[in-house]
Amino acid sequence: MLTISSRGQEMPPSPIRKLVPYAEAAKKKGTKVYHLNIGQPDIETPESILNAVRTADFKVLEYSHSAGNESYRKKLVGYYAKNDVNVTADQIIITTGGSEAILFGFMACLNPGDEVIIPEPFYANYNGFAVAAGVKVVPITSSIETGFALPPISEFEKKITEKTKAIVICNPNNPTGYLYSQDEMNTLRDIIKKHNLYLFSDEAYREFCYDGQAKSALTLEGVDDHILMMDTISKRYSACGGRIGALVTKNKEVYNAVMKFAQARLSPPSFAQILGEAAIDLPDNYFDATKAEYQKRRDVLVKRLNAMEGVYCPNPGGAFYAIAKLPIDDADKFCQWLLESFEHNQQTVMLAPATGFYGTQGLGKNEVRLAYVLAVEALESAMDCLEAALKVYPGKTN
Amino acid sequence: MLTISSRGQEMPPSPIRKLVPYAEAAKKKGTKVYHLNIGQPDIETPESILNAVRTADFKVLEYSHSAGNESYRKKLVGYYAKNDVNVTADQIIITTGGSEAILFGFMACLNPGDEVIIPEPFYANYNGFAVAAGVKVVPITSSIETGFALPPISEFEKKITEKTKAIVICNPNNPTGYLYSQDEMNTLRDIIKKHNLYLFSDEAYREFCYDGQAKSALTLEGVDDHILMMDTISKRYSACGGRIGALVTKNKEVYNAVMKFAQARLSPPSFAQILGEAAIDLPDNYFDATKAEYQKRRDVLVKRLNAMEGVYCPNPGGAFYAIAKLPIDDADKFCQWLLESFEHNQQTVMLAPATGFYGTQGLGKNEVRLAYVLAVEALESAMDCLEAALKVYPGKTN
Repeated sequence: MLTISSRGQEMPPSPIRKLVPYAEAAKKKGTKVYHLNIGQPDIETPESILNAVRTADFKVLEYSHSAGNESYRKKLVGYYAKNDVNVTADQIIITTGGSEAILFGFMACLNPGDEVIIPEPFYANYNGFAVAAGVKVVPITSSIETGFALPPISEFEKKITEKTKAIVICNPNNPTGYLYSQDEMNTLRDIIKKHNLYLFSDEAYREFCYDGQAKSALTLEGVDDHILMMDTISKRYSACGGRIGALVTKNKEVYNAVMKFAQARLSPPSFAQILGEAAIDLPDNYFDATKAEYQKRRDVLVKRLNAMEGVYCPNPGGAFYAIAKLPIDDADKFCQWLLESFEHNQQTVMLAPATGFYGTQGLGKNEVRLAYVLAVEALESAMDCLEAALKVYPGKTN
Repeated sequence: MLTISSRGQEMPPSPIRKLVPYAEAAKKKGTKVYHLNIGQPDIETPESILNAVRTADFKVLEYSHSAGNESYRKKLVGYYAKNDVNVTADQIIITTGGSEAILFGFMACLNPGDEVIIPEPFYANYNGFAVAAGVKVVPITSSIETGFALPPISEFEKKITEKTKAIVICNPNNPTGYLYSQDEMNTLRDIIKKHNLYLFSDEAYREFCYDGQAKSALTLEGVDDHILMMDTISKRYSACGGRIGALVTKNKEVYNAVMKFAQARLSPPSFAQILGEAAIDLPDNYFDATKAEYQKRRDVLVKRLNAMEGVYCPNPGGAFYAIAKLPIDDADKFCQWLLESFEHNQQTVMLAPATGFYGTQGLGKNEVRLAYVLAVEALESAMDCLEAALKVYPGKTN
């Protein structure tokens, strides 16, 4: 019989993209939709790095090395050193987006049936890569009341079984914006050391920290072999479409295993490697303006949200996401209703229901994720829409 | 314990790339190495499609649709129609190279433990994607004596078990260059219909047919739901580094399942989608010159090989590979020896041992794959090297 595989059936559809048809219908009706539902920055990709691609001089668009161009990896060494991460070029594998780094890490280190602990809410696509690798995600709940801080070590101990092989973190966090403290990172170090676990550390938003600094997992002492760092240029340089990321590990065995997966797919994309390499040469102050812009947006967003009746949004320390608790019955229904049945001055807002970011069934039903990827004026308008919506939503709970 | 996963251990290293250190050492000694070991064409990427990327006007390098840009998919419909394949834009998913199309197909249709039958010798990376998906490759041997024709239907019947879910073909074939006849395609159609199997059809080399025409598996009648066609622009337009391919299927359930894997990795690379879309507008005669060039090279290669004592090379009908039987003890040793211990006028040739393309242990030991991706003059010099080498190789068998 022609059947879909079990993993093909279990594979979760994107929780962010499932509302797209409703947004399209709203736009067809003439309603302006503010997209706070997806982490596609509106910041322009730096002209100089686009120009590096435009002016690159070659005759044949060749395969690159399976680990990515050596010249790029060598320059990345310098970039990481500036971020207190001391690695060599042969500890870096350029991947097709951060996505591939996660998939390769899971594939190389985890067997089907193995368990990975992930503080929830978490980046929804970890679920997808876990299904692809046959790995079981064990969520450990972080709470909006603590601003989504790392759950206490005792909670981890409760979840660790003999099948537990790894912990996955994202720092600063998507979807919560939470920035782990040095103490929390040390807690993680102690857990992975004691229980001999891998730590997969997704550091896509490294530069976007507003209250403090993100310390890479690769700076943790005494656990070099435990760390697989996942990286991407997507958000850093507003280059999501380039599909260039990296897997960085000091564990030689892991590196060699990942390289075999990298060889099977031949090479990462050549054009965007040129862009990524050029990005290393951006002036050190490149991030200042971008960071200041996101911080301004965060401040507006959080202030506006907390001024709404029955709404609570902890102040995110990094990335460009926030999760807010709303006085609503069901976030999925609400987000659909915003697109299908609501408009405010012919405008509405698209949000991501938080349910898709929790592994525990039933959690996040009154929470939404907001990506502050729009300029302040648009953000204000989006907040006007949300505020008006919460006054008339039939399923409101206060 | 920190361990590498079983699949991380089983994952085969690239059989083509393992000789690279020997090639590098040879070059350091001052020996010129002719690379016939890898399918990296020397043909220039058409200037007009590189210019499409260079002049593309956008400010933010955004994610594309997870299925790829709609404009590109719509134009591909026209491209496929010219090749007698009638599909719609929503039966096409743009993938990150043909590699990702193969991986997605395996992931969506096959369970761990399922079996896929592949005529051997076959493209070595099918092994890698099979290991990633936990799928067992069951090889069915095609022989150099028949020019690597499709084995008779009785051989397939012998290999089909209740775990068999699919057959994988590559047409025209990498590594043999064999071009399946309409009769052979019909045989495959009958087998997949009778046993309810998927047919994964890798059509990367569609345009490179010298004696006849490759009929797409999607033209087979009565088996629409069975076919997953894997495609790539890599060889077609000398754009290997772009990492743009496609998975094409009329099976809606399969399409939807594959789309979930596509959503998890967000989108295929944006730059090379521009290039791929521009390539559809190349004049119809674009392939004439390229094809004529490859045909000239094939003719030189095959003639030279068959003129050498004890060498046999069937005439490949398509792609740009040939497999030759050599009078040698061990192809892996011979290919290493060519780089390590041999030179002819300070030149040598790098070949791929055929052993890496067989699933059956022990086969291909006196065969090599040659990719005719160099201009005729260089090919002649490479053949001079091989001819001289076969006269002095210590492990020669005639």
